[in-house]
Amino acid sequence: MSAIVSRRDLEFLLYECEQVERFFQEAPYAHLDRETVDSMIDSAQAIAEEFYLPVAAKVDAQAPQFVAGGGDVVVPAETGKALRAYADAGLFGQTFAQSVGGLELPYVVSTAINGLFSAANQSIANYSMLTVAAAHLLDKWGSEQQKTLFLAKMLHGQWLGTMCLSEPQAGSSLADITTRAESAGDGTYRIHGTKMWISGGEHNLSENIVHLLLAKIPGGPPGVKGISLFIVPKRWVNERGELGDTNNITLVGLNHKMGQRGTTNCLLNFGERGPTKGYLVGAPHQGLRYMFDMMNEARISVGHGAVTSGLAGYLYSLDYASERRQGRLPGHKDAASPQVPLIQHADVKRMLLAQKAAVEGALALIFYCAALVDRKAVAPSAAEADDLELLLQVLTPIAKSWPSEHCLEANKWAIQVLGGAGYTVDHPVERLYRDNRLNHIHEGAYGIQGLDLLGRKVRLSGGRGLELLFGRIHETLLTVQHPDLQPRAVALTDSIEHWRRATSACVQCPDEILGLANATPYLDAAGHVVIGWLWLRQAQIAHEKLPGAGPADRKFYEAKILACRYFFRYVLPGAAVLFDLVRSLDDTCTVTEPEHLHAGR
Amino acid sequence: MSAIVSRRDLEFLLYECEQVERFFQEAPYAHLDRETVDSMIDSAQAIAEEFYLPVAAKVDAQAPQFVAGGGDVVVPAETGKALRAYADAGLFGQTFAQSVGGLELPYVVSTAINGLFSAANQSIANYSMLTVAAAHLLDKWGSEQQKTLFLAKMLHGQWLGTMCLSEPQAGSSLADITTRAESAGDGTYRIHGTKMWISGGEHNLSENIVHLLLAKIPGGPPGVKGISLFIVPKRWVNERGELGDTNNITLVGLNHKMGQRGTTNCLLNFGERGPTKGYLVGAPHQGLRYMFDMMNEARISVGHGAVTSGLAGYLYSLDYASERRQGRLPGHKDAASPQVPLIQHADVKRMLLAQKAAVEGALALIFYCAALVDRKAVAPSAAEADDLELLLQVLTPIAKSWPSEHCLEANKWAIQVLGGAGYTVDHPVERLYRDNRLNHIHEGAYGIQGLDLLGRKVRLSGGRGLELLFGRIHETLLTVQHPDLQPRAVALTDSIEHWRRATSACVQCPDEILGLANATPYLDAAGHVVIGWLWLRQAQIAHEKLPGAGPADRKFYEAKILACRYFFRYVLPGAAVLFDLVRSLDDTCTVTEPEHLHAGR
Repeated sequence: MSAIVSRRDLEFLLYECEQVERFFQEAPYAHLDRETVDSMIDSAQAIAEEFYLPVAAKVDAQAPQFVAGGGDVVVPAETGKALRAYADAGLFGQTFAQSVGGLELPYVVSTAINGLFSAANQSIANYSMLTVAAAHLLDKWGSEQQKTLFLAKMLHGQWLGTMCLSEPQAGSSLADITTRAESAGDGTYRIHGTKMWISGGEHNLSENIVHLLLAKIPGGPPGVKGISLFIVPKRWVNERGELGDTNNITLVGLNHKMGQRGTTNCLLNFGERGPTKGYLVGAPHQGLRYMFDMMNEARISVGHGAVTSGLAGYLYSLDYASERRQGRLPGHKDAASPQVPLIQHADVKRMLLAQKAAVEGALALIFYCAALVDRKAVAPSAAEADDLELLLQVLTPIAKSWPSEHCLEANKWAIQVLGGAGYTVDHPVERLYRDNRLNHIHEGAYGIQGLDLLGRKVRLSGGRGLELLFGRIHETLLTVQHPDLQPRAVALTDSIEHWRRATSACVQCPDEILGLANATPYLDAAGHVVIGWLWLRQAQIAHEKLPGAGPADRKFYEAKILACRYFFRYVLPGAAVLFDLVRSLDDTCTVTEPEHLHAGR
Repeated sequence: MSAIVSRRDLEFLLYECEQVERFFQEAPYAHLDRETVDSMIDSAQAIAEEFYLPVAAKVDAQAPQFVAGGGDVVVPAETGKALRAYADAGLFGQTFAQSVGGLELPYVVSTAINGLFSAANQSIANYSMLTVAAAHLLDKWGSEQQKTLFLAKMLHGQWLGTMCLSEPQAGSSLADITTRAESAGDGTYRIHGTKMWISGGEHNLSENIVHLLLAKIPGGPPGVKGISLFIVPKRWVNERGELGDTNNITLVGLNHKMGQRGTTNCLLNFGERGPTKGYLVGAPHQGLRYMFDMMNEARISVGHGAVTSGLAGYLYSLDYASERRQGRLPGHKDAASPQVPLIQHADVKRMLLAQKAAVEGALALIFYCAALVDRKAVAPSAAEADDLELLLQVLTPIAKSWPSEHCLEANKWAIQVLGGAGYTVDHPVERLYRDNRLNHIHEGAYGIQGLDLLGRKVRLSGGRGLELLFGRIHETLLTVQHPDLQPRAVALTDSIEHWRRATSACVQCPDEILGLANATPYLDAAGHVVIGWLWLRQAQIAHEKLPGAGPADRKFYEAKILACRYFFRYVLPGAAVLFDLVRSLDDTCTVTEPEHLHAGR
């Protein structure tokens, strides 16, 4: 039994829920079929289990160290070995065209594959994730020459990449970045400034590091409209592709984190010890647009990381609960009788179901969103592509945040199932909990996602994105046939009504601050409804498949139906409560003054 | 501004809510007055801030190490220095009679004092907490000679103590301990067995360690009825009080924990390398009764630790949010305008209010329970003492669990307020989060507390304990005068109705397993109602005091009223949802089989 994946669940989501085989019927995925994809997943799983999983505790314990003198940041050799295995399997190029040496997989398949690595070892998976994100930017917006110089190296994992957005004074507020890029007159720019929280910003893993960096060209518009995107390599690469000397990027410090400790995270100075040169990507002042063009994927990817940390904890605690014996059931207190496996206790089953409901529910959302990315790419018309994009825009903050909250919660219960053992480094669950805590913070913090959903996404095109979503949910409701699911359909319909009313109240609120004050509870409630919908969809498919299922599959489908029931009884009722709070335009937070909170100290 | 306490809030809880000055009017507390107690709190705060707080990061980073060869476990010197300061102030003896050298403080005052230390540095505070717990057992059940031999040394902090309950095969299930104690015929016993999760079990902090250990005397009754209590010192102490050689207690291993890393946690073998001797405390086979006699206090103390970790995180994130500038308010997006302090953002205020509501609400419960311990001790009649004990029995699992859940949640929001910075070791909030995660596990795990409340406590004396609690809540409701609080009174009354119905459904359920299957949600909901009650009580007192309050106190009282409002609007509505689930006797967890959860793996 794998510690990082339920392959049956992966197949269920890919082929039974998202019907990914349909993608293989036409361009650009006609080179694929299910057998090929499954064998790619097999290989990826083997690499993740051989090179990533066994060293997860080690790369956590031996966090990257700055070695004074040499100026190098030393990462355990296992990290490089794992990334080499990933690169050798061509996995850096999963979603890139075959013409640039990629595997040209649908995004949803690549998501399935990358989840194996993040479940096994998020710290190592981060290096490739960031490199691929940077490579995507270059692939889409870079010049042919820039692609020639950088892309192939990155797709071979020979040069790793980063995304340099935040600065010490500008974390959530990118409008306030101050890093400057001045034209050198020779087609390159001189970069001056400091970048913060740069994952993979320095290490000894690759001969070069390709930073994709946001900076302002003096004289441009203020705020986010004056941000441009640059390629700033650690070692300069001239126009003939020759690797030069240091590009004067100075490591100011490593951040020592609670989790995801195996990924370096750096404060970097540019242009302090000598000139730091960069290539402008695309047009000036368009940097944030380019960056946000891949923001859906980046945020889905963070949500996915949260899910896979939750999944690894769930699987581990499930196995532990099946082996470890402790206590007896109510009514059976004879101390001479053997103790029962933990999994026999109702409360332990509750903690396992809570994890399953969160993890598999959220995974369904991640796959749904990933498949939307693919559907948008092959949409038969621009109008349909626009609709899919709108739908994706609405779902993205949910896909980023709901797992960050509820799969972290799942990790909490995984620890709890193990008891004291779960609190020690002898088991991975405490590390997974620490790792997962990051996901609410990076790529747009929880509160930012709430503002994004309620302040922007549900208002786009006159609220069309939300209506598209409700339309999709309605389509699922129409398929629900089994009488067991009728009460769920009613509950879901009711929760959508609460959602609508809360949205109207906020959108119509003349006081903009008050109207957005409860954006985070709104986001959380929206997540409950969306995950509830996707559980109902899973349960409906399970009911359809049950009659023809063999014994093993029978239990699998029954478990889907049980987890759906768990979600609707234990979790979904919270959505209406939250939406009612939001709808009331509660002003408790806005009327509270700093003086109140400091009073009496 | 202190990082570990709001003194005004401490005074509010002690003197305005619990009216502790009344204790000082008669024996055994007539030697005290408010001025004396306040100056003791001053001194304790000074010690906590000088010796505990500044080394909290260090004792976390430099977890105890086993030094092979010497056989010693080395703890940073700062730990010993802090405990010496605590001892020198007489604080080991806070709640002991003056006749044995104690300060003879009410338990609630001692709770206030100890909270300063656990907020500052839980890892160090654990050593004294465990020693005091062991000393209490000896004081109450030990022979005069045992007290002479051990108690004075422990009350001076010269010898530290531990509680040895769990074993590798017996964590939550104490009925299954197998450690044997065989009479040596000379009044001592020979101990054989292995004890697990022993906090403070080995270290170089004191010349001796006094283990209070549960073991079975062969031939006794099976299960928990055959457990006896023993004094098992690390170095033998003969009947003349002479410190002898090693008592052959072997350190098998140190547990490396996610948090509370500064407290050693050990696997110990007794009697393996030579005879381990012990003194029997009290009568044979009464050990668990003795142990549970102090279980209320031990569990309140764990809950209190959860609160103080939450409090320290709240205060830190409040200060950070007041200083750190980031972003602008909705409707003010001009990038040329200065960024606003984080605390101006509605969502940050929400995260701060969430912390305040959890932390100060839970602290009110801890103080309420602690004062009940005192009231019980000085109760004018046995009947009243019995009532207070029953009430305390009902509240104890709540006081242990609600803070463990919701003040951990508070720590999560403290990290979130800081963003990426909160995820690094540069700030204490990530450590507080790691520390706090333990509290759901030790001294009876969350699920055990749920079973204790629903399976035992609410059924004691025909449900009298619960009715006593509802009576107390009703008394508060009768005092509520201010119109602003009327909706809260209605909501609280309604939530009690939900509680009653859920209780009836479970108690009357003929299927014992099903009736207890949702004990944990029941416990959580009960906590919401109890904390809601104590918030209403705080808000009512605040309303009474407001008209005569000066400007600073005005803001303090207004903040209490706002936090009460926050709790009733954002948290309490969840109670009815949970109670309705419990009342439905939902069987999702009981019908789920292990095969369902393993299907498809």
